[in-house]
Amino acid sequence: MQAIYNIAEICARHGVEDVVLSPGSRCAPLTFAFVNHPSMQCKSITDERSAAYIALGMALEKDKPVVLVCTSGTASLNYYPAIAEAYYQAIPLLVITADRPAEWIDQQDGQAIRQHHVYANHIKKSWTLPTDHMQQDSMWHIERIVSEALLLAQCSSKGPVHINAPFREPFYPKENEEISYSEPKCIFATETEKSISHPLAIQSVVDASAKTLIVVGQQKNNEGLNKLLQTVHIPILCDTIANVTCDTAVLHHDLFLGCLTSDKAAQLQPDLLITFGLSVVSKNTKLFLRKHKPKRHIHIGALDQLSDTFQVLSDVVDVNPAHFFETIKLPDQKEYVAQWNTYDKITQKELSLLAVVKGFSEFKAIQYVLSCLPANIVLHVANSMPIRYVNFLHPPKMEIQANRGTSGIDGSLSTAIGASLADPTRLHMAILGDLSFFYDRNALWNNYLPPNLKIVVLNNHGGGIFRMIQGPKVRKECEEFFVTKQNLSAKMTAIDHGLAYYSAYAERELKEKIQLFLAEKGTALFEVFTDGMDNTTMFTEFKALLHSKY
Amino acid sequence: MQAIYNIAEICARHGVEDVVLSPGSRCAPLTFAFVNHPSMQCKSITDERSAAYIALGMALEKDKPVVLVCTSGTASLNYYPAIAEAYYQAIPLLVITADRPAEWIDQQDGQAIRQHHVYANHIKKSWTLPTDHMQQDSMWHIERIVSEALLLAQCSSKGPVHINAPFREPFYPKENEEISYSEPKCIFATETEKSISHPLAIQSVVDASAKTLIVVGQQKNNEGLNKLLQTVHIPILCDTIANVTCDTAVLHHDLFLGCLTSDKAAQLQPDLLITFGLSVVSKNTKLFLRKHKPKRHIHIGALDQLSDTFQVLSDVVDVNPAHFFETIKLPDQKEYVAQWNTYDKITQKELSLLAVVKGFSEFKAIQYVLSCLPANIVLHVANSMPIRYVNFLHPPKMEIQANRGTSGIDGSLSTAIGASLADPTRLHMAILGDLSFFYDRNALWNNYLPPNLKIVVLNNHGGGIFRMIQGPKVRKECEEFFVTKQNLSAKMTAIDHGLAYYSAYAERELKEKIQLFLAEKGTALFEVFTDGMDNTTMFTEFKALLHSKY
Repeated sequence: MQAIYNIAEICARHGVEDVVLSPGSRCAPLTFAFVNHPSMQCKSITDERSAAYIALGMALEKDKPVVLVCTSGTASLNYYPAIAEAYYQAIPLLVITADRPAEWIDQQDGQAIRQHHVYANHIKKSWTLPTDHMQQDSMWHIERIVSEALLLAQCSSKGPVHINAPFREPFYPKENEEISYSEPKCIFATETEKSISHPLAIQSVVDASAKTLIVVGQQKNNEGLNKLLQTVHIPILCDTIANVTCDTAVLHHDLFLGCLTSDKAAQLQPDLLITFGLSVVSKNTKLFLRKHKPKRHIHIGALDQLSDTFQVLSDVVDVNPAHFFETIKLPDQKEYVAQWNTYDKITQKELSLLAVVKGFSEFKAIQYVLSCLPANIVLHVANSMPIRYVNFLHPPKMEIQANRGTSGIDGSLSTAIGASLADPTRLHMAILGDLSFFYDRNALWNNYLPPNLKIVVLNNHGGGIFRMIQGPKVRKECEEFFVTKQNLSAKMTAIDHGLAYYSAYAERELKEKIQLFLAEKGTALFEVFTDGMDNTTMFTEFKALLHSKY
Repeated sequence: MQAIYNIAEICARHGVEDVVLSPGSRCAPLTFAFVNHPSMQCKSITDERSAAYIALGMALEKDKPVVLVCTSGTASLNYYPAIAEAYYQAIPLLVITADRPAEWIDQQDGQAIRQHHVYANHIKKSWTLPTDHMQQDSMWHIERIVSEALLLAQCSSKGPVHINAPFREPFYPKENEEISYSEPKCIFATETEKSISHPLAIQSVVDASAKTLIVVGQQKNNEGLNKLLQTVHIPILCDTIANVTCDTAVLHHDLFLGCLTSDKAAQLQPDLLITFGLSVVSKNTKLFLRKHKPKRHIHIGALDQLSDTFQVLSDVVDVNPAHFFETIKLPDQKEYVAQWNTYDKITQKELSLLAVVKGFSEFKAIQYVLSCLPANIVLHVANSMPIRYVNFLHPPKMEIQANRGTSGIDGSLSTAIGASLADPTRLHMAILGDLSFFYDRNALWNNYLPPNLKIVVLNNHGGGIFRMIQGPKVRKECEEFFVTKQNLSAKMTAIDHGLAYYSAYAERELKEKIQLFLAEKGTALFEVFTDGMDNTTMFTEFKALLHSKY
């Protein structure tokens, strides 16, 4: 098994530090390899669906590959949702699935499925290792694949890679056998930087535009880039997950673009659109730009993850955004900036008035929770309504993450746990609806709950989003087949996993308890109960109020 | 959407009765189609991983396709473990995944992944429907695909098929719009029976064998076949999941084949092996036949799911097993039958003595629970230790199911719930270890818990199987990275879902409460706590005792 044990050594030399293992027999040689390596921090997580999202959260936080190891069979299929998320969110993961040797596939033997290239649709590359590891060329083959996988996971747009590893018995070393690592073959990348080769061509496009708009998609907080953007005097539309903190950023476009008359929106139409980052949360921004199309759209990003979100993409500049803004001089567009800022400020004012309106709803609860958070917190927001609310509110200067690669409801809590584990010195908070929370409650089913994670569950007992959408809410099928009412409270789950538990049914209660909750030393959960119908009514009323203000 | 609504009508005409839907917007047209159809029983299950296993359980029980419908994105990937299980267990499922239209894939838009043929490795066939449904040829295309999918799911070796259905907005009918069904194109299969074309050739092979052995793999209970087997006088090795109830069956081979000396085992070597059914649970039977190979191996089963479990397959007869035993006359092999029966009876006697040995273990707990069960119960046994224990004990005349298509621990409880829902007049029991139970606790997270289901959780707080295997149990890494200790009790989960809850830490307690538990009117859960180390010790002692008896 020397070549297999060396996989851990190669990972270490490439800077990998974290491994999430799920228990199994077939994967034992890999387990022994990683668990015994002095550079590796290993965790054992039983539910592979959750394990993969936890690894994703870690990789997100550390910005380097995290290794996943599971046994053969359906275990590997449970990884797939998180792999798709990593693929679209460009997060590096090295997925290693143990397998039966090829001769036993489809022979009605246990835990044997067709794992070769099983993630075909959402993986940067897949390899199946040779089954015989002792032969000289096979060792070269195995070690070469591991280096290639680690390089590919981190190059250009990052992402998940898959190594399928078939093993014949025996899997286990002897009782006192030492696991050791020999000098493996390693291939490193020494040059990956890119620069703009013809800056004048781009400069001339920028100079020719009277109204240039920047829209930033999902990205990690980047101090250097934020400093550069601080000096830019054109409107920068930032979703919460763009993690842009410059003073000139437009923050509430997701609310006001949905409320402006068509005439007023048309006045905001840009000539030139510049984008960077991944997905955009704001549906209203998408609708606005797809209707009021710019003449040209420059996207700064990797060619191998090209997407035309606004249906108007004309140019791709495959460099680091910071390099772009260092190289290209952007004009000062005071008037256009002022146009956007006016709407932003009106919205901000109305949002601050919302706090004093009577009645309790999810929207107000989130607003209040956000207002209480200390600086330097990392916020993980689940899909469906929570990310929409947070994007509408857009708390400034807070690092915000959401699984918007695929926008699934399936692994948000696991991702937050992974990120909290990988970043133990900062406080993390996960905000989830009840469906996301219970779907992924096995995120809590492990022996590594991070004390720096606080969880807020907004429980309205179902998929409240369907009551917000015109289509389903008027139909008789809405409650059973769309909202799908569920009666659970998170209390028993909190007890099961030893979390400090708080709950509130009213604003006063939330206000009384929030500081105690935030001061908890261990993992804690705050469950805020609201009525789904009330949430819909109050949010609709607030939007109607906004309409009249612009 | 007429062509889409007609999908439900085509399904109805093909005899489909059950649909498991998971809530979402993109799949709304399909939801409306099925929910409004008078022949369809629809259920809304939020966790797609569990939804798919519930559908599998229903299809298993009814032996006809069950429809699965989910929204776009990672929802579809959560179906994958159950699809692989259905593939290897030959269970018909019609999986319909709603999708974004092709032009929005990879554009950083929400819940858009590459769903086309995403289950490539484990699906009988995949189709992606046209996005425009109104065109005449498109309607023909859609309706033709649905018939083809339903036919394919049920022909030869049955299995899962996948229809990917892209939709553009709007998805929702108007508030009071009636969903109606027009006369759709349907293609039916009128002739699927097969018969043996050259019976004499097979008869001569059978006649030439002095020692013929029958081994039955996983299959559903089949009264007609059992009657035919009752008249056969050659040894028939039956695992519990073979569901053979004839008096001549050998039941405890999984225990005694593991304990016989090599000499004694060699005396049991067959000349001819005849098999039918799918996977074999008994590892000892596999090892015995791979070592003491028959000269010839005839497998009765579908050519499109060919497997060579014992590495000696020589002939495949692609007919119904009942037809085989009606056509081929098997010789009376009294002496060979007696050889096997001697060992079977010794084992049966020792097992009955086990009950009076002192100490409490999982093995004894299962033995006691099985002895209390009424006739006509259906038993669902989870993977890892439970299915091994049940196979060793082999309770006669009981219908037994296990997810041995892939032998995963991931969906056993959901499958049992699906089967109980599809078969409400019989009592069902699920027996699971703690890892299987908690992995799949979201099986309970729906509004349709079947009152006819009783759940037994054998809680030893981890993956006890690893303490049974020589390899891991002697290593220092065993407890954290193989057993993966977990501290939960199922009590809070039972409270959450309103299940009647019983528990026992000792044999006496189990005996006192079991009848009350079985008499519960609603879904009930019995948690039996044992010590993992004790389980290992006592089972090892029992096997040592057996060794000395043969």
